[in-house]
Amino acid sequence: MGDLTIWTYDWVPDGPRGFVRDMRLRWACEEAGLAYSVGSVPFGPRGAEHFSRQPFGQVPFLADGDIRLFESGACLLHLARKSEILMPRDPVGEAETLQWIVAALNSIEMVSVPWWFLEISGAADNGLAGWLDSRLGHLENILKDREWLAAGRFTAADLLLADVLRVPKLREHGDRPASETYVARITARPAFQKARADQIAHFAAADASRG
Amino acid sequence: MGDLTIWTYDWVPDGPRGFVRDMRLRWACEEAGLAYSVGSVPFGPRGAEHFSRQPFGQVPFLADGDIRLFESGACLLHLARKSEILMPRDPVGEAETLQWIVAALNSIEMVSVPWWFLEISGAADNGLAGWLDSRLGHLENILKDREWLAAGRFTAADLLLADVLRVPKLREHGDRPASETYVARITARPAFQKARADQIAHFAAADASRG
Repeated sequence: MGDLTIWTYDWVPDGPRGFVRDMRLRWACEEAGLAYSVGSVPFGPRGAEHFSRQPFGQVPFLADGDIRLFESGACLLHLARKSEILMPRDPVGEAETLQWIVAALNSIEMVSVPWWFLEISGAADNGLAGWLDSRLGHLENILKDREWLAAGRFTAADLLLADVLRVPKLREHGDRPASETYVARITARPAFQKARADQIAHFAAADASRG
Repeated sequence: MGDLTIWTYDWVPDGPRGFVRDMRLRWACEEAGLAYSVGSVPFGPRGAEHFSRQPFGQVPFLADGDIRLFESGACLLHLARKSEILMPRDPVGEAETLQWIVAALNSIEMVSVPWWFLEISGAADNGLAGWLDSRLGHLENILKDREWLAAGRFTAADLLLADVLRVPKLREHGDRPASETYVARITARPAFQKARADQIAHFAAADASRG
């Protein structure tokens, strides 16, 4: 039986606080009422021990008893299988949740994260802007017509898509009222608010010890 | 009980033949011995019917009895749950397979596909090259030390990562002998060869009907 531990950095600069991807796992546990603890690995330098647990040197990773998992999307799917709150158990509802979780990772984030990376790199002409606008436009059409992505109710797919879309640069880019309403509504959930406050406190506590 | 149908375009130009992502599902079914049929939707123009089944206007999508799924990664995970050949049933082996499937989608393809897009767009200075090299370098270190990604044997994670890495521009970029050996070995599997030949024949048959 697994004791859940979510691993994240011991400290990050102000900018990413509230956005580091252990958020996805904290939030999921809070929604589902799953007990968990949070472990820390050094933000830098990242040694062999870190790479043995996350081969790209990133966070989060998850321990669930004997099970070890990296990739926030994989950890989220693992947690979702533990709680019907996160993913319905009926095959059709489960498939809808699964397809939208992967869509958030591989149809939206696959364009939005590299677009964001080029933006913060100061690229004069972001070559991914047209593609991004097309993907977000299709999504806006979807979100105009429905309150939830899958199974007619909140699932881990909404959690993940809202987390993907809530990046400030993305929200400021273009005008997509249905998407904006959706992000505001999903991130108003108490479980998100608690997870975010906890993450910010976790990194702030390290400021004191670095003090 | 589901009759599996994999949906793809009725025709594509020569360039993408053998690479359209219904490959991932054909290949998985061939590995697992799952019976399937292939359905076609128009390559263009894509109408409301297509968008109702795939909200970004892409392929593939999958029908499994009453279950409908889009996103090749989600369809692959759905098929993997049907066959131990694709994903072990023990929780540790399943978690390893899941994490590497998501890593292929969200740590590798999230960088390699936008990099490829900028390359074919003729960008003079591809702003994603350094990030791509870092990700592929970490992966090369992994593939130096092991034959398979998960569970010590072939799984759907190898299928997907090999499919992500076999893109010609990616193979020609940089020097990663372990990754190259891995891709050559995984794509030498008879199930891949049959899936690829079948996809090429599917699109070639449409050339004849287009006259």
